[in-house]
Amino acid sequence: MTANDPGLKSWVEVPKDSDFPIQNLPFGIFTTARTGPGVGVAIGNHVLNLAMVHELGLLDGLRLPGRIFSQPHLNALFELGRKKVGEVRERISELLRSDHHELRDQVKAREDILLPVSRCTLLLPVQIPNYTDFYSSEEHATNVGSLFRDPKNALLPNWKHLPVGYHGRASSVVVSGTPIHRPRGQVKVADSEMPVFCPSRKMDFELELAFITSSNTNLGSPVSLREAEDHIVGFVLFNDWSARDIQQWEYVPLGPFLGKNFGSTMSPWVVTLDALEPFRTEGPSQVPHVLPYLSFEGKRNFDIQLEVLLASEKGEVATLSRTNAKYLYWNIAQQLVHHTVNGCNIQVGDLYASGTISGPSPGSYGSLLELTFDGKKALHLPGGEERGFLQDGDTVIMRGHAERDGVRIGFGDCLGKILPAIG
Amino acid sequence: MTANDPGLKSWVEVPKDSDFPIQNLPFGIFTTARTGPGVGVAIGNHVLNLAMVHELGLLDGLRLPGRIFSQPHLNALFELGRKKVGEVRERISELLRSDHHELRDQVKAREDILLPVSRCTLLLPVQIPNYTDFYSSEEHATNVGSLFRDPKNALLPNWKHLPVGYHGRASSVVVSGTPIHRPRGQVKVADSEMPVFCPSRKMDFELELAFITSSNTNLGSPVSLREAEDHIVGFVLFNDWSARDIQQWEYVPLGPFLGKNFGSTMSPWVVTLDALEPFRTEGPSQVPHVLPYLSFEGKRNFDIQLEVLLASEKGEVATLSRTNAKYLYWNIAQQLVHHTVNGCNIQVGDLYASGTISGPSPGSYGSLLELTFDGKKALHLPGGEERGFLQDGDTVIMRGHAERDGVRIGFGDCLGKILPAIG
Repeated sequence: MTANDPGLKSWVEVPKDSDFPIQNLPFGIFTTARTGPGVGVAIGNHVLNLAMVHELGLLDGLRLPGRIFSQPHLNALFELGRKKVGEVRERISELLRSDHHELRDQVKAREDILLPVSRCTLLLPVQIPNYTDFYSSEEHATNVGSLFRDPKNALLPNWKHLPVGYHGRASSVVVSGTPIHRPRGQVKVADSEMPVFCPSRKMDFELELAFITSSNTNLGSPVSLREAEDHIVGFVLFNDWSARDIQQWEYVPLGPFLGKNFGSTMSPWVVTLDALEPFRTEGPSQVPHVLPYLSFEGKRNFDIQLEVLLASEKGEVATLSRTNAKYLYWNIAQQLVHHTVNGCNIQVGDLYASGTISGPSPGSYGSLLELTFDGKKALHLPGGEERGFLQDGDTVIMRGHAERDGVRIGFGDCLGKILPAIG
Repeated sequence: MTANDPGLKSWVEVPKDSDFPIQNLPFGIFTTARTGPGVGVAIGNHVLNLAMVHELGLLDGLRLPGRIFSQPHLNALFELGRKKVGEVRERISELLRSDHHELRDQVKAREDILLPVSRCTLLLPVQIPNYTDFYSSEEHATNVGSLFRDPKNALLPNWKHLPVGYHGRASSVVVSGTPIHRPRGQVKVADSEMPVFCPSRKMDFELELAFITSSNTNLGSPVSLREAEDHIVGFVLFNDWSARDIQQWEYVPLGPFLGKNFGSTMSPWVVTLDALEPFRTEGPSQVPHVLPYLSFEGKRNFDIQLEVLLASEKGEVATLSRTNAKYLYWNIAQQLVHHTVNGCNIQVGDLYASGTISGPSPGSYGSLLELTFDGKKALHLPGGEERGFLQDGDTVIMRGHAERDGVRIGFGDCLGKILPAIG
């Protein structure tokens, strides 16, 4: 029996369609009015307080460092490595199983072990030393290339040979729920000689998955394909907010900058790669053949259903997009291998985002830029509102889950509300 | 009398042409066989051990936190703010003045207060949460645009309206003296259909200055021009090593990535903005007028002479370039204001590099790409060797100093040796 067994049940009540059954057990950082920040695990609508579980001696067999769960970030835990984090998850699975009583008996007496999530504030789960954003969806790269450049040569010559990526800004990555101010910036209107300075008129989201690393490697030491996944501990949902008008004026020749770095939102729970193992699937075939250092054998991708919803200030909630992570052309191992093939080192807590995930059909595009053809064809929401790009007061909600054999491994919400520009 | 007074002399011997007279007093992190890492100040050929000075009670008037100098990075010190760091420098200046005896008398008895730099190892001075590289030299941007794109439209339309920049990789920034392995990567030869994977054949340096911030600002709160320099504590020399062939194939549309992130080298001493105040000078005139949020009044730039030397494995040492920081089109305040105008937050220890500094004449170009026209016109070194790009075993040495009234404020060496590709 492993933590992924579809037959497992927990003594903690898990509502139907919860993202957090006993087969998931993602890690996060929570705080409450009574406790400081610490490591928690999501189970149903509750947060398991791992510092308390450790204090009770229930994790002693794992020989963990003393205050490993009384931390404001998951970095110290993740630094123990993917294998050790997996052992922690396996033990927690055991403690939460319906046929186990060790922890259950304690919980009756100690209400600060298992906390209703409604009483917790979820914090940014990792301190992020480096954040990289890839561009790994062929459909997205093609759509953007058509809109920003040339429909006839939408995909640039390098795209099918390497996972194109760029460095993003780590300081402005925030946890789900943090509001984002509409950025101001330079915008160039096509028929004007000079740029103007104004609030962005093309506020957009980008639906992404991001993985987090659990190793420090040495500068000059590439990570091989065989070992790449040993360095990856888990995933979050990621909204790479984008100001398209700022981006379009600034991005040549050195890439996106202020059009992106005003804020990026991640979901609060790190869903482990271990929990997603049962959901591996084929990726798109790679033609032309990739170079040997990128040649991944086996099931490249994960079958994770994704959706984007918009909640307007008038109260309307509409689904804008439904897509799937399996459409990604480049997978996480290829991304990490490419990133380090020149000797670039990785660090614990690094964030590596997929780039916008778009599918083949218009309803599966992962950004408004694509869904509305750069704002030219507004989306008609069921309640009567229209959107070209985002309005102040809009809340964007991203969700994702994998499902099989009645087991649903979900991420929880990745959401953010757009506030008016400051000043 | 201030720490910058040209008349000041120190009781510590300072050789003629030293980068580190009493008017400089840059901060760094040193370690010795006997001590752990700690904060030091350079004076002549010595390092002043600030933890010891503090322990002796000689900094008590400054009311500093307890172990502020017993740290492996300068971040905690810098987080006190530029003003407080300036007070520390003023007090150290006083203690080192030839007419002061408080510290001098102690040093006679305690040889671990003032250490010969030859007995110290200098470490990376800051833990870098974020690293941004600008592209602020008009001559460099023009030269690169001509070589990589189109000589007729070398400077892109946005360049004179905003300080173009991009996010770099913080993990691979190393201190002067750290060898750098030649990176491997994908390279596309013009007449070939497919890219090949090989060690870079176009290893280059980029001569830059970088500034370091001493504040944490809030997401959504831009920094104004008036307050920008309050957040900047000092400068280092910076070599943004570049693999031109890797860069050229990968950089569209999202900018440089593996062509840069295999390593960047910074000099070990953070020369304070305070020490450079006397060397302010006009920058190039900005036409067309920049937008009001970027409109800097006064002396925009610093008159800092810069040079690049190459030491070959055969023992030849040749000067490749001589230039000056005053040529930069965009200054540090404009860079920081632009970076945050969209609400992007800054953090203590962030590194903001200028981009390659090239002057108007061929001998003043800050990269081999420009000096050799992409390797097409090899440089003939005085000793008979030739270089298109760097060879394994080459050591690149960058130096910089400002000089006036017999006072020379220098940076020390920023050097790195190219080792062969691994594997």
